[in-house]
Amino acid sequence: MITMNTKAFGTQSATAPLEKLNIQRREVLPEDVEIDILYCGVCHSDLHTARNEWGGTKYPNVPGHEIVGRVTKVGKNVTKFKVGDLAGVGCMVDSCRTCESCKEGLEQYCEQGNTGTYNGHDKHSGTHTFGGYSERIVVDEDFVLHIPDNLDLAATAPLLCAGITTYSPLRHWNVGAGMKVGIVGIGGLGHMAVKIAKAMGAHVVVITTSASKSEDAKRLGADEVILSKDEPQMKVNARTLDFILDCVSAQHDINAYLSLLKRDGQLTLVGAPENPLPVAPFSLIGKRRSFSGSLIGGIAETQEMLDFCGQHNITSDIELIDMQDINNAYERLLNGDVKYRFVIDIASLKNMVK
Amino acid sequence: MITMNTKAFGTQSATAPLEKLNIQRREVLPEDVEIDILYCGVCHSDLHTARNEWGGTKYPNVPGHEIVGRVTKVGKNVTKFKVGDLAGVGCMVDSCRTCESCKEGLEQYCEQGNTGTYNGHDKHSGTHTFGGYSERIVVDEDFVLHIPDNLDLAATAPLLCAGITTYSPLRHWNVGAGMKVGIVGIGGLGHMAVKIAKAMGAHVVVITTSASKSEDAKRLGADEVILSKDEPQMKVNARTLDFILDCVSAQHDINAYLSLLKRDGQLTLVGAPENPLPVAPFSLIGKRRSFSGSLIGGIAETQEMLDFCGQHNITSDIELIDMQDINNAYERLLNGDVKYRFVIDIASLKNMVK
Repeated sequence: MITMNTKAFGTQSATAPLEKLNIQRREVLPEDVEIDILYCGVCHSDLHTARNEWGGTKYPNVPGHEIVGRVTKVGKNVTKFKVGDLAGVGCMVDSCRTCESCKEGLEQYCEQGNTGTYNGHDKHSGTHTFGGYSERIVVDEDFVLHIPDNLDLAATAPLLCAGITTYSPLRHWNVGAGMKVGIVGIGGLGHMAVKIAKAMGAHVVVITTSASKSEDAKRLGADEVILSKDEPQMKVNARTLDFILDCVSAQHDINAYLSLLKRDGQLTLVGAPENPLPVAPFSLIGKRRSFSGSLIGGIAETQEMLDFCGQHNITSDIELIDMQDINNAYERLLNGDVKYRFVIDIASLKNMVK
Repeated sequence: MITMNTKAFGTQSATAPLEKLNIQRREVLPEDVEIDILYCGVCHSDLHTARNEWGGTKYPNVPGHEIVGRVTKVGKNVTKFKVGDLAGVGCMVDSCRTCESCKEGLEQYCEQGNTGTYNGHDKHSGTHTFGGYSERIVVDEDFVLHIPDNLDLAATAPLLCAGITTYSPLRHWNVGAGMKVGIVGIGGLGHMAVKIAKAMGAHVVVITTSASKSEDAKRLGADEVILSKDEPQMKVNARTLDFILDCVSAQHDINAYLSLLKRDGQLTLVGAPENPLPVAPFSLIGKRRSFSGSLIGGIAETQEMLDFCGQHNITSDIELIDMQDINNAYERLLNGDVKYRFVIDIASLKNMVK
């Protein structure tokens, strides 16, 4: 396999800061698209993986799975992209393509496990995949997305993970007009969920621990805000919501949120707290409620989400940073100090002298 | 309100054994049906309530909500029953009838709270309701069920709680042919669930902690049995089930059962463990699984279930006891020593001399 030197930014161990690295990318194979990366969003998963907080990280690790850029080369069998096209890559770059989930377009639930954009098993190189903190990426066209041309490109990058992770469950559970939908947690995921649920036609209720986020929630499109620490407010709103999307990754009292659901209501978790969440049986039984989870989204659905965001002019609220700022950005991420997504301007990596 | 002396069996306190009592029942009002009780099943809720284990028990307490008998009197406006009809009463004898849930025939989820057959607030007497451990009961015809005449009457009584509690979620989540359905726990609820799911056309997999129940599970209709303590067996069966009905009331590891579900699978709890069950986020997120709960069933659905059981010749496996044996039966219930439901022959109460 012919490879090419590629500038990247990553880490050699769980405890080392991220720094400039040189990685090898394959030259395009017949089904591949080569993308010159322009912007890459910073997801909390990047930090978890870089620091091996979920275990299993292979080093060197190059994070990044919210990638947008422009096509610079296509393999001879590629039909969906041509040089010069805008293109995006999200959390996956491959899957088995033969299991029931893959056949249904739900590659994220591939029975063999999908190939993560970073730290996945790379079928071509035999080693592991490297993510979007790099100047270019080579991906099979079936896992490359078209990017609407009316959106701000940097602010579009987070749609590839934060966007699809929230769009997919909202869509799957048929959120739309006439529904009262709660969004728990206003961060990278939650702020996207508010915008998307609103664009789907729902009455959006933000549930947050911090009064300071109330104004911002309304600016993002929320119709109402409930402060979860205000017990009388929680009581008044008991049994009023049809659906809740829970975007919180820290430990939290799931029963308090379940109590806000009507009969037959559904609470879907997209944040991933480290420890099990205790669920009181009567939180569910008393009103036939469901507690579920959802993982990113399939490729076809990701394209649908991007088109939807194009139509509704939805992008992420971002803070653009240079590649050199990533270690500081990780610290700020840990403190919740970002509104609401860091995006790396990859030009800063390309221009790096040493 | 005119009342009549009625022989019953109940308790005056959480710590006293059940004994013969005299209670007052109202004479039939225009919408009422009076039922001469023939059999009453013994549900674990009876014991919880008699002993005030859930709090809120009012004394004297007369348990029993799996009631079958024969109509002996009807009010002048009654149209659905006539004297001599077989009749049944389950867990509810009234509800608000005006909320959204009641209007949809889901009286069990009444927003005002339904009126329990025992320990409920009796709108007529102003005190609390008394259950089926008694010689007769007077109930509004809208909460009285028709009993198919081809079934063994004593073995039919448990359908009024154990039957509907399992039928309702199996029906709600569309269990039928082509589905692999797991039933966790073979007791009063679980053994009914096996029979009903099988009659609905599903491939039934019993999941049990005790190898000794394996033969019995197959006799009840299970196609397969998984021993939950056998880790290799649990692993082989991971991601194979479409739906699981969890009938266990003791604490248990819900994540182990969730792992048996396919993508988009649903686990519904009908047992009610006392303490919260810890749910690992990735048990749900990784396969878009749902964890839900379900409470008995509405009146129309209870009738549907009884008709279904009539058509499919389904009754409970029971041990018939005399009223005098109830305290001993409670002890045996606590030890899981019943296959699978005690039913009281109410003749033994009627014939009691003192």
